[in-house]
Parts: sequence; structure tokens; C-alpha cells
Amino acid sequence: MPGGIAHRFITLLTDFGLEDDFAGICRGVMKRIAPDVEVIDITHGIEPQAVLQGALVLANTLPYMPSGVHVAVVDPGVGGGRKALCLRGGDGRLYVGPDNGVLLVAAEKLGGVQQAVELQNEEYMLSPVSRTFHGRDVFSPAAAHLALGVPPEELGPAVPATALRRLELPRPEIGESRLRATVLYVDRFGNVQLNLTAGDLERAGIEPGTEVEIEVAFERYFAIVALTFADVRGGDIILYEDSYRNVALAINGGNAAEMFGARPGQQLRISRLR
Amino acid sequence: MPGGIAHRFITLLTDFGLEDDFAGICRGVMKRIAPDVEVIDITHGIEPQAVLQGALVLANTLPYMPSGVHVAVVDPGVGGGRKALCLRGGDGRLYVGPDNGVLLVAAEKLGGVQQAVELQNEEYMLSPVSRTFHGRDVFSPAAAHLALGVPPEELGPAVPATALRRLELPRPEIGESRLRATVLYVDRFGNVQLNLTAGDLERAGIEPGTEVEIEVAFERYFAIVALTFADVRGGDIILYEDSYRNVALAINGGNAAEMFGARPGQQLRISRLR
Amino acid sequence: MPGGIAHRFITLLTDFGLEDDFAGICRGVMKRIAPDVEVIDITHGIEPQAVLQGALVLANTLPYMPSGVHVAVVDPGVGGGRKALCLRGGDGRLYVGPDNGVLLVAAEKLGGVQQAVELQNEEYMLSPVSRTFHGRDVFSPAAAHLALGVPPEELGPAVPATALRRLELPRPEIGESRLRATVLYVDRFGNVQLNLTAGDLERAGIEPGTEVEIEVAFERYFAIVALTFADVRGGDIILYEDSYRNVALAINGGNAAEMFGARPGQQLRISRLR
Repeated sequence: MPGGIAHRFITLLTDFGLEDDFAGICRGVMKRIAPDVEVIDITHGIEPQAVLQGALVLANTLPYMPSGVHVAVVDPGVGGGRKALCLRGGDGRLYVGPDNGVLLVAAEKLGGVQQAVELQNEEYMLSPVSRTFHGRDVFSPAAAHLALGVPPEELGPAVPATALRRLELPRPEIGESRLRATVLYVDRFGNVQLNLTAGDLERAGIEPGTEVEIEVAFERYFAIVALTFADVRGGDIILYEDSYRNVALAINGGNAAEMFGARPGQQLRISRLR
Repeated sequence: MPGGIAHRFITLLTDFGLEDDFAGICRGVMKRIAPDVEVIDITHGIEPQAVLQGALVLANTLPYMPSGVHVAVVDPGVGGGRKALCLRGGDGRLYVGPDNGVLLVAAEKLGGVQQAVELQNEEYMLSPVSRTFHGRDVFSPAAAHLALGVPPEELGPAVPATALRRLELPRPEIGESRLRATVLYVDRFGNVQLNLTAGDLERAGIEPGTEVEIEVAFERYFAIVALTFADVRGGDIILYEDSYRNVALAINGGNAAEMFGARPGQQLRISRLR
Repeated sequence: MPGGIAHRFITLLTDFGLEDDFAGICRGVMKRIAPDVEVIDITHGIEPQAVLQGALVLANTLPYMPSGVHVAVVDPGVGGGRKALCLRGGDGRLYVGPDNGVLLVAAEKLGGVQQAVELQNEEYMLSPVSRTFHGRDVFSPAAAHLALGVPPEELGPAVPATALRRLELPRPEIGESRLRATVLYVDRFGNVQLNLTAGDLERAGIEPGTEVEIEVAFERYFAIVALTFADVRGGDIILYEDSYRNVALAINGGNAAEMFGARPGQQLRISRLR
């Protein structure tokens, strides 16, 4: 294994779910190649083919993960012309996944991209490579070999940074006492994560303790800008900074996503009442 | 790491589900602090915020787990005034979780509580601590440091045993040839676990081979008190001692929970027919 | 541990799901007995009691798994008279599970069965053995002891190969330009795996590029025989060789299983149009 740096950990984030064997088989492929590597599942619950969601969850979670080889597979373009990538980050982390933007949000948040290569060297793939399951046949073996210390440049030719595919992140519109935001993510507890930070709320003049009107899908709701659930009564709707430092909507003791019928990509308006 | 005993294993039981990254991120936090510790997921499928269910599953499963640091996070009171705890059990196990009773059923079953401390020492938390995700910011780092051998008393001040919050376990009413029981848990196969033991059935004079009437939600069903599915025909309802030594209802080859519309907390009556 | 060969890995495939603690408890049992063994979850998402599905997924996935002790528990006959088995394969892999055919498809694909024993030695079971959870009480401890190097013959008496229960695999009917096939499996992405190989299609004279009619549940659909999603337009139905070398139906960018209402066991007809 010439020249590269070995990594003890591989993290894995996919849209494979856990009902099927897709996640398990990737783990098997890695362990056959690199039996001593440890695989940490971040989640396999990304919505099928939801590249933006995968990119955001990867960026949110990697700061809490040990440094290693970070695989993200949300890959609607598998079998078409999209490149398979390995990126090396400024902090030494390696990223493996399809060239559809799923890796870049995290890599740029954590020190930028120092090196990008296209996975082309068939020595580091399974043989044959299927047309529909590159998670197993391309990304898992690449990650395992990288973890063993194979340097990225062994896996294929350099890709210029400007050629990497980027995702368009939805941006909020921030007005005087009002905002227009987009739902990024809905979690198991029904919390509705928005594309807003506490700073965005502040710029719109909406501060903790304020009451706001939420308009979503032709319905209107009252909510309180609060720090935590403990600040409001059961059943109250709150707008708060969540544990990933995004602004989110929740109902104390209830399921906000169900009440709003909220889904990723949906828009809503927030207006200050007083 | 002065004075404490190191643990190789951390077990993890939560209501986080696996669709989101919550369980994965806790594992990442632990592995950053204690890379050699092994994390065993008991389950992340506790119903959201179902503290009693979490407590019962923890108590049912820990006897089958290697001794270590046992984390349980079902935490509707996060961000409010509830304490964060570490308990030391009589058999050397350590317990980490919120002070809402989720830890105590297991700890008391397995040798009692020898020591209780409130997690207050910020050296053993992430910084900053979010208001809504103490699983990541408080409990996971505490567990990892404990596994490394940091003694509990390093993590915060002692809590008197009498101050620990306790759950009220639903108790059955046991009469002559009849009982009133409560559904504790419904599993994937539709088995309906009750708050009854084989001893309770015996005290009511209901023995293997007996036929009983089950009354639930205004409907009545016939069931057979049996030892195992193999004792009855396909489609028969049986009342049996399950593998955790609770009495449960099941349908041979079917889904009893669906037929009864059974949910945790629901009450039912059992009467002997002959 | 006399005479046997130690194994570093145990793989685990069950119908236990992940909502309950069943999979976690099996892992705990194994780790108490064999703390250094590594457990790889293939999946716990087999449909409850779907023995054929379990057998096929095991056979599909084991070639990608490191050699070891391979546990498969889909066990509708638990508590009845069915045997508990350990098989030794021609390539040194060990198989552990119930005698209902769930192990044999994989074992015969990977070098055949060299040895079969019935798990009867109570030294290698938990005590007591429950009547309904042999995954925990019989199969997990057997697997852990085998991984430590206990030879299979220690676990119980030999079973003649001819006495092993076998599954009947559904066979396709292959005609001139038409086939009748059975749905084997439906995955999270809605891909519908059939009991057909590319060779079967070829024998029926249905080649890549051909258009076919699919008849399922009294409805008819047009589909294209293609190599990958990238060969067709969004919304097109394709018949393709999937990554496990089965023929499958999919919709580019959609969910074929939902459109067809497809379920395992369902039959469909495929006829060449031109």
C-alpha cells in the first residue's frame, strides 16, 4: 500500500434503508478487503434518491464522527454517465461517493477539497461491476482500499475542482419581520428543519419570545419563538434553533410534521405578530 | 483516568429510530472519545417518548448483554429541569440516561443501585450542549468517558437514592378465574405482551390447557392457554409465557395485535371458560 | 476448544426487524460468549416468517461476506418439532439456523454441504431454552461457540444430507417469445425481482432492446428490455438484469412495485411485442 495514510474508520450514509440487504452487503464487501477497519453507520434512512437531504445530513453529522473515509451513496444517476469520486479534504478526511453534490457540502464545511479523483482503476472495484449497485461494486471497495492506505491518486485520474457537480441549496428570503423558508428535513419526532439559522431570524427582527404566524399549504398557525420545549406549554408550536443549529418547527409533545403535512422542499412563510 | 474501572462495551437503547442520524451520531461521539470501546445497539425502536416501554425493554434485555456502560435515552423532558444520571449497579454495571425512571427498573432487577450521580461536569460533555439533544451532547460523551475508566463521582455530585424518579408500573388485578391486565408491548410479529407472569395466571386458577375469554375494546375472543404455538392449530389465539417470562397473546400464524387493535397501555380482561 | 477452526466473523440474517430488541439481544448473547467475534448484520428486514425470501437473500449476499459462521433465523416452526442445524460447507463456512430450507440454498450455491449436525448439546445453549425464541437461546450461542472453534460435531448428532428439509423454488415457464415468472422479492426502491435469469430471457428469444408486454393482476404494461436505467427515459418500465444477476422490473425514477401492486409469490407473464 504505497504512500497513503491508513484510516481506522469508515462511515456510511446511504438511502438504502435497512429492510433490504444493501447496507449489510456493503459492510461485508469492506470487511472482506479490510477486516480491521471499523464501519460506523451514520444512517441508511435518507429518502430514496434524495441527494440534497443526504448532503445536508452528511454535513451535519461529520463533525461528530471520527476522521476517516466517509462514504455517501445517494445515487439516482447510477449506471449513467455520472463520475464516481474520491475527495480529500483539508483536514485529512476522505470522501467517497457519486459526483452529484452529495459529498461537497460536507467537504467544503470541513476545510475544503484538496484533491479530487475519479474512481476508474478497476483493481479497486469488484469484478464484474454491476450497472445498478455501485455502492457495493465501486464505492465500498474503494473506501476499504483507501482505509488500508492506498492513496487516492492510485484510484484514478484527477478531476479539477471546477468540474465537480454542486447542489443548489434553497436560500431563504429575509424581509422586514417576515421570511420565506423551505423545509429541509423532517425527523422521526415530527420536527421540521428549515433552511434558516438563528442569525436569519435575527436579521428579520424575530427574536426569542416573539409570536409568529406560520403559513404553510394555505393554512395558518401561531407559533412562539423559543429556546426549548420547556419554555412553552404542551401543544404549543415553537420555532427554535435545533441541535444542528438550524431553525426548526416543533410541537411540544406532538408531531409538527403531521400537523403541517410538511415535506422536504415545501415552502412556508413566517411573519412576526408582535 | 483516575481510579475507575474500564468497560469494553457500551449498550445503547433509544427511541431515536434508524431513519434519522440520531443513533449514528451518538455512536460517532462515543468512538471519537473512546475508539476501542464497542457499542452494541439493543434497539432504537422504542416508541417516541415511551419511557415505560424503554424501561421494560432495558430490564428484559440487559441480562443477555455483556456487562458495561448501559445507555438508555427516552427523554421527553430534555431541555427542562430533569437531571441527567449515572447509576452504578450492585453487579458493577453502569447506567446512563435521564432521571425519568428509564434506568431504574433494570438497575433494581440486576442488583440494585450502589451509587447515583448527576451528570454536571462539563468536562465530560460536548461543548456547547444543545437544548434538545442530550443523547449526543451529554449521555454519549459521559458513557464513553465512563468506559475509559473515569469514575462516576468525577461526572458530578451524588444524588440520594430516594430522590431518583420512579415509574409506576401498571399492576394486574387478579381475581377468582379472572384477571384484568394491561398491554405492555406489541412486537413486530404482533405478539401482545401483558403485565402478567405465569404465576399470576396460576393464582387466578388459569392453567395450561384451559380455555379463556379475552375481552378487549368491547370485543370478545376465545383463547387457549398453551405452552407454545406448536400446541394449537393455525389461527388459534393463545395465551402463553413468552421468552422474557411475561404472559403474552398471539395468534398461531397471524398477527394478534392487529386483530385486537392492541396498543401499549390498553386494558383487557381474561376469564376462564372451563 | 478442541479441534475446531475459529472464525472471526458471524453474519446474521433474520426476520426480526429492528423496532424490537430481538436482533440486539442476539448480538449481546454472542458477545457475552465470544467477545472478540465481529457480528455483521446482513439484514433483519426479511418479511416475518418468509423462509423462501430469507433463503434467497442469504444465497445472494454470502458471496460478498467474509467467510465465517452464517446465522439465518426465519423460523415459523419454532417450538415445534423442526430441528436446529449447523451445516459445514465445502468452502469452510458454517451455517446455523432452523431446518426449514433457509440455509440450504446458500450452502449448495457455495460448495455444497460437507457435514450436518442437529443442535442438541445443551452445554452450547442458554438455560433455560424458551419455546419461542431459539434465535437467542439456541442459534446465537451455537454460533458464538462455533466461532470460538468448537467443532460442529460437539454440538449434536449428525444428520444425513437426505434428511435436510428443502424449499421448493418457483420455476419459470419458458415458451416461444413468452415466459411466466414469479415475483421473488420487492426492494425499498420498488424494484421487482423475478425468478428469471438473463439466460431465461435469451432462451425465450427476448433480447436487449426488445419491447415486451407485462401482464400482472389483469393489467397490461409495456416494458423495454434494457441494460440499465440510463438506457431509457424517465417513467419507462424496464426489464433488466439486476446486480444479483436476477431479472427484475423497475421504473426509471419511479416505484415499479407500487405501480404493479407486486408482492412476493405473485405471477406475471412476459410476451415479446417486437
